[in-house]
Amino acid sequence: MAESGETTIEVSVKALVLDERTHVPVVMLKEKDGERMLPIWIGPAEASAIAIALEDMEPQRPLTHDLLLSIIEGLRATVQKVVVTEIRDSTFYARIFIRGEGGIAAVDARPSDSVALALRAKAPIFVASAVFEQHGSTPEEPGPEDRAQALRDHLRNLDLKDFGKLEG
Amino acid sequence: MAESGETTIEVSVKALVLDERTHVPVVMLKEKDGERMLPIWIGPAEASAIAIALEDMEPQRPLTHDLLLSIIEGLRATVQKVVVTEIRDSTFYARIFIRGEGGIAAVDARPSDSVALALRAKAPIFVASAVFEQHGSTPEEPGPEDRAQALRDHLRNLDLKDFGKLEG
Repeated sequence: MAESGETTIEVSVKALVLDERTHVPVVMLKEKDGERMLPIWIGPAEASAIAIALEDMEPQRPLTHDLLLSIIEGLRATVQKVVVTEIRDSTFYARIFIRGEGGIAAVDARPSDSVALALRAKAPIFVASAVFEQHGSTPEEPGPEDRAQALRDHLRNLDLKDFGKLEG
Repeated sequence: MAESGETTIEVSVKALVLDERTHVPVVMLKEKDGERMLPIWIGPAEASAIAIALEDMEPQRPLTHDLLLSIIEGLRATVQKVVVTEIRDSTFYARIFIRGEGGIAAVDARPSDSVALALRAKAPIFVASAVFEQHGSTPEEPGPEDRAQALRDHLRNLDLKDFGKLEG
């Protein structure tokens, strides 16, 4: 339930792109005070959730991450920040810090869920410095961000009504 | 923030099936003290989330509905119950009742998210009597529950590692 004591770097969501080889969505986090980027491979449902928030789209019905924020707000709590804390066996880990009536709760989460929630809550996103140093890349290296527009177009073309029509 | 005053019927999740015509997953809710069933069309991601809970599968990483429960528990709150409250324009609506330190919060949600959360929290699921009277069916009518096994097999055959490997 305590804050992490490690050094972190604030980032913003620069783009959503598709890994050309695996066709897996990748969220690109860019450091606020620099040019380094951190790519994190995520699932398609979470990519949609992030895209909807990035594009300020209004889904016909609140989706799962909207519900997540509704419940936090319903419990009179706020998302303080999210932090990508480490990478282990090719998997990124994150933590969501929530300020509730009884103090701050730190909840383990996938980075994709954390980013999807942070964008909705307008909470800052951080990455542990060690993760950035290990896996960050600079724009000089050819990166998947060049394919950002393709995925954004793809996600924009999803019929948002499909998310809601006749759905529970 | 108040309880619903309407009459409700407790249900259990009887099956997950596929609508043969539209290939949309359907969650079948069955009344506990009777034989009537209520089919609700849901999205594929929420169907997976429900299937995983029904089958007691352990995903490699906590998924979004697991995170939802973690956050509720992190805020020292509990899921009291979920209620499918109404159907309007072919769309079902539900509400999640959460007992927090400051009282009970009632949060609007899709039935699919509500059921996925209730199964994880082992909280009871209710349906407003009016919804059941309007849309419930009895087993005498041929229903999609006959195709339950096909979807269960399909969902069981999903490689759960795909949910987690390299995912944020």
